[in-house]
Amino acid sequence: MWCIKCKGPASIYIRRHNSAFCEEHYLEYMRKQVERAIEYYKMFTREEKILVAVSGGKDSLALWDILLDLGYTADGIHIDIGIGEYSIISKEKVRTFASSRGVKCYEVNLKDIYQTSITYIARKNNRSYCSTCGVIKRYIMNLFTVLVGYDVIVTGHNLDDESASLLGNVLHWQIEYLRSQFPIMPKELGFSRKAKPLCRVTDEETTKYCDIKCINYVSERCPLSKKAQSLVYKELLSQLEASSPGSKAQFYFGFLERGKRYFVEKQETLSISNCKICGQPTTEDICSFCRQMRRAGLDPLLLKSTIERNI
Amino acid sequence: MWCIKCKGPASIYIRRHNSAFCEEHYLEYMRKQVERAIEYYKMFTREEKILVAVSGGKDSLALWDILLDLGYTADGIHIDIGIGEYSIISKEKVRTFASSRGVKCYEVNLKDIYQTSITYIARKNNRSYCSTCGVIKRYIMNLFTVLVGYDVIVTGHNLDDESASLLGNVLHWQIEYLRSQFPIMPKELGFSRKAKPLCRVTDEETTKYCDIKCINYVSERCPLSKKAQSLVYKELLSQLEASSPGSKAQFYFGFLERGKRYFVEKQETLSISNCKICGQPTTEDICSFCRQMRRAGLDPLLLKSTIERNI
Repeated sequence: MWCIKCKGPASIYIRRHNSAFCEEHYLEYMRKQVERAIEYYKMFTREEKILVAVSGGKDSLALWDILLDLGYTADGIHIDIGIGEYSIISKEKVRTFASSRGVKCYEVNLKDIYQTSITYIARKNNRSYCSTCGVIKRYIMNLFTVLVGYDVIVTGHNLDDESASLLGNVLHWQIEYLRSQFPIMPKELGFSRKAKPLCRVTDEETTKYCDIKCINYVSERCPLSKKAQSLVYKELLSQLEASSPGSKAQFYFGFLERGKRYFVEKQETLSISNCKICGQPTTEDICSFCRQMRRAGLDPLLLKSTIERNI
Repeated sequence: MWCIKCKGPASIYIRRHNSAFCEEHYLEYMRKQVERAIEYYKMFTREEKILVAVSGGKDSLALWDILLDLGYTADGIHIDIGIGEYSIISKEKVRTFASSRGVKCYEVNLKDIYQTSITYIARKNNRSYCSTCGVIKRYIMNLFTVLVGYDVIVTGHNLDDESASLLGNVLHWQIEYLRSQFPIMPKELGFSRKAKPLCRVTDEETTKYCDIKCINYVSERCPLSKKAQSLVYKELLSQLEASSPGSKAQFYFGFLERGKRYFVEKQETLSISNCKICGQPTTEDICSFCRQMRRAGLDPLLLKSTIERNI
């Protein structure tokens, strides 16, 4: 097996591209995939300030590393959701990476602020852990990006995540999600710009990237996500990919290029206003974060004031 | 386990409905599912003449049987595609059923007419067997329905077939197929009305129906379809169904109720004209059947003249 770039011995084979790489050109391949996504979807420029949401997993650390290598100005934000050992290890990985690259990483510690964990809030809301965690993380990321003055928040969602999410949306014909699913969400009405620069690469590819670059990441799955339905969709798509390499990308990019427009053009304008409690943008009277925290008997405003005090 | 209707001992359990039935009420359940599809989608009435496309498999024979039990006027048409033992056995099953119910079944024998089989035509066209067979069968069914004067042609496509087909269309974002996929296609511009009254029941359910009614069907899969991509999609959806019962129906009916309209309302009017060779409706100069037969060096018109001579 020979590297398609330098014709030297290759150690990595990407089946869906039918391409082999040596380590050096594999890293180049990864940077090019990210750069291509950033440029094609007009995610951000080298002049802008980027905030990377880093969990401590392979995707977000690989993304941060690639953005820095590509010359972008990228700080990190790590949200500690307070679920014991897993959270402690995750934070360590993030800190180790940030210090090795000499970059800034903000930390928001949910347990410190609220003296409770995501599991308690989820139970009080009768919602799944993943859904509760998603609401809280999106809220914090948006708040932080706006408060601290970043141009864009980027997340490590990759092709496997995005295609699994798309499959779930299609299987349930969740039109509103089909409308909004895209690698870039522009800044509008109080919502910060959001981008997913890893949308062209897979789980397997970011894993290989971290291995080659000796990036130390949390390899365990989040203990709260073990029953997540998205894992079922990922597994189905992986089977499809095994029988027809390239299927996942064909499905996801086919949607972006041919499918999505059918849902988008029928979009009614969402009426966005300010949450009556926290002032953040929402399509309802009270945003989902504030509703969620109130149902758990917690003060929604405590988060914002803590962040403001610490930045 | 007790029958949800008569509370007597049940021998059949339908997991997606969380319902058990005795044999008698299971047959009633099946008839109701078919009747509901016929009425909901306005497929046909008891005054109309129905032609059932019967392959000899469980679905088409179960469908024919149910339609007769429900009091519909339904004759059959069997297309013998000339692939040896499988075709011989299939025809025997159809003949046995038709004679047991005292109903008429037309037979079209491709090998008798063209002295060749589907495999030869497929190879000459560089197309898959299933695609070639589909073009030929749809052509014959349409021609026959119009020539002999039936109001509608019905096929045994069930919920598994339709959801697998939908999954394939979505995975490839085949918009034109997403536009047209529906349990009923109205008669228009030379195309006969087509309906799929089994769209509410699964493979497993028609199998149980045939077993209870002692309907003798071909249980082997068509030897030419063993590598069909639709089998991959069926398998994926079956896995999903196993983990979340009802997923297939949710996916398919969710599409019909919420998803499909987004594709339909953007439909440009198809310009349909008459095939320059056979006169049948087509969206191109020459219909796909005639193109296919010509590429195989066969006379497209021989089919029509043979059918006209024999009816």
